[in-house]
Amino acid sequence: MFMKITFCCINTKPEPWLAGLRAALPQAQVELWQAGASPADYAVVWAPQQQFFDQQPQLKGIFNIGAGVDALLKLRLPPRAVVVRLEDAGMAVQMAEYVCQAVVRQFRDLETYAADVRAGQWTFYPPRQRDDFPVGVMGLGVLGARVAQALSAFEFPVNGWSRTAKALHGVRPFVGTAQFHDFLASSRVLVNLLPLTPETSNILNCDTLGRLLPGGYVINVARGAHLVDEDLLALLDSGHLAGATLDVFRTEPLPPAHPFWRHPKITITPHTSARTLRETSIAQIAGKLMALQRGESVAGLVDVGRGY
Amino acid sequence: MFMKITFCCINTKPEPWLAGLRAALPQAQVELWQAGASPADYAVVWAPQQQFFDQQPQLKGIFNIGAGVDALLKLRLPPRAVVVRLEDAGMAVQMAEYVCQAVVRQFRDLETYAADVRAGQWTFYPPRQRDDFPVGVMGLGVLGARVAQALSAFEFPVNGWSRTAKALHGVRPFVGTAQFHDFLASSRVLVNLLPLTPETSNILNCDTLGRLLPGGYVINVARGAHLVDEDLLALLDSGHLAGATLDVFRTEPLPPAHPFWRHPKITITPHTSARTLRETSIAQIAGKLMALQRGESVAGLVDVGRGY
Repeated sequence: MFMKITFCCINTKPEPWLAGLRAALPQAQVELWQAGASPADYAVVWAPQQQFFDQQPQLKGIFNIGAGVDALLKLRLPPRAVVVRLEDAGMAVQMAEYVCQAVVRQFRDLETYAADVRAGQWTFYPPRQRDDFPVGVMGLGVLGARVAQALSAFEFPVNGWSRTAKALHGVRPFVGTAQFHDFLASSRVLVNLLPLTPETSNILNCDTLGRLLPGGYVINVARGAHLVDEDLLALLDSGHLAGATLDVFRTEPLPPAHPFWRHPKITITPHTSARTLRETSIAQIAGKLMALQRGESVAGLVDVGRGY
Repeated sequence: MFMKITFCCINTKPEPWLAGLRAALPQAQVELWQAGASPADYAVVWAPQQQFFDQQPQLKGIFNIGAGVDALLKLRLPPRAVVVRLEDAGMAVQMAEYVCQAVVRQFRDLETYAADVRAGQWTFYPPRQRDDFPVGVMGLGVLGARVAQALSAFEFPVNGWSRTAKALHGVRPFVGTAQFHDFLASSRVLVNLLPLTPETSNILNCDTLGRLLPGGYVINVARGAHLVDEDLLALLDSGHLAGATLDVFRTEPLPPAHPFWRHPKITITPHTSARTLRETSIAQIAGKLMALQRGESVAGLVDVGRGY
């Protein structure tokens, strides 16, 4: 069946995506969007402007080339369009390895050893007790579940917090608002993989991070707006938190004057914890698009009201 | 049955070991060794001097509180003593997490990102292809097998090289001298977990490391004498190797003037990749000692001729 796909992704080199989508969907006409383009059936997007949707009210489906749709859902979307987000597409293993290395570096004092080596010092620190280093994972979707199970394979006690109950081998489940404080009080490391919604915005704040076990450590790989920056800094200064690894920020790139750049207890990376892998993503989009065309249901369909 | 155990471990605080061994083996008399001590049945040792064994020729068993027995086997040992090394005892998971974080930091360019952050730069690098990043693990004992399987869980292609064939899920097997060059030529990262024997001494040298795929990376967590230091430096200078993570050295502590301390492509840690965990080790020693007393076979028995 003939269909038209428009591609509108900022900060993304379009040519290899267009070539890949054309190869995967030979029956489709795939074009790079430009103002005034003719109407398309489907859109493949990353951070489009409102103007894009205003000019394409007929869209039947929108494919977001990322796992988080928080920015997309702030726009007025075409009334009949379903929104589909990438699931996994090579991101889950990246997230698992990124988070595991961050947890291991803190658990094994590898930043401290690196500082000693820079100072020419050969020093030992007593090993931490693994049983005394429970890791709490917030959000148990495709990415969070993979992260939780990778941590469990390294024999860390793992707590998982989710809106609805999820049974994962090796992960102690905490569900909903009622068990949130218990979850926090049972965790020394907090890994955030929640979707960003009005309910989860600012969820990493003075009250919640203050409930972590002493010497807590925060790993934010979801969205910058989950974290109240000043609250993290205050809890690091007070010593309640030992450190943080942050991959996402309220403003990206992180502004040059922001204190996170040079804070001795904070490790930052430039939103690189799980990169969209083009080939895998194109294959996933093509598969889901053809399923939608056949009238079948697809995974990764966004519940716009819920926000993810 | 009454028995006497002598404890002779350098660089080890003896009191908690003595208390732990006494609690685990209440039928035994456990004493800290001193010159002229009365004869014991079993010894628990780490890096003892020749004098120790010369004064204890009656020993029936020697428990080494580490996985490597290369230093021990250089001594003249009591003629009837079996040598038992620690197996795992909490070391395998430590080795797996240490090696995985080293591999992930190289695969994900995290050292480069850290340098950019120190320079105040928000930069992206194209993701490497996982299929193009095969990791070769040398030595598939308890530690090597755990490391290989942890890497496989992160979806790296994993090659395993061992003296005798080992079947491990997700690990491509290479066996013996005949397949050593194929193993090297199929690996971009090389992880050394071999026992140190006359056959494996200097095994990481210009010829072997030169056979790795270009941009190779070396992780040595076994013994410093496996590696020819100058050969590593030459291959880093030539650009054939991209870097190395080293936890073990020919002389430890690493001498202050050694070039490894400040080499920009080398990450070092002070022999801390897998620490002996006292409680787990005591439980393992107690269990094996009682099995030996009952005349049963135990795992971790060292073949003195083979060297491990």
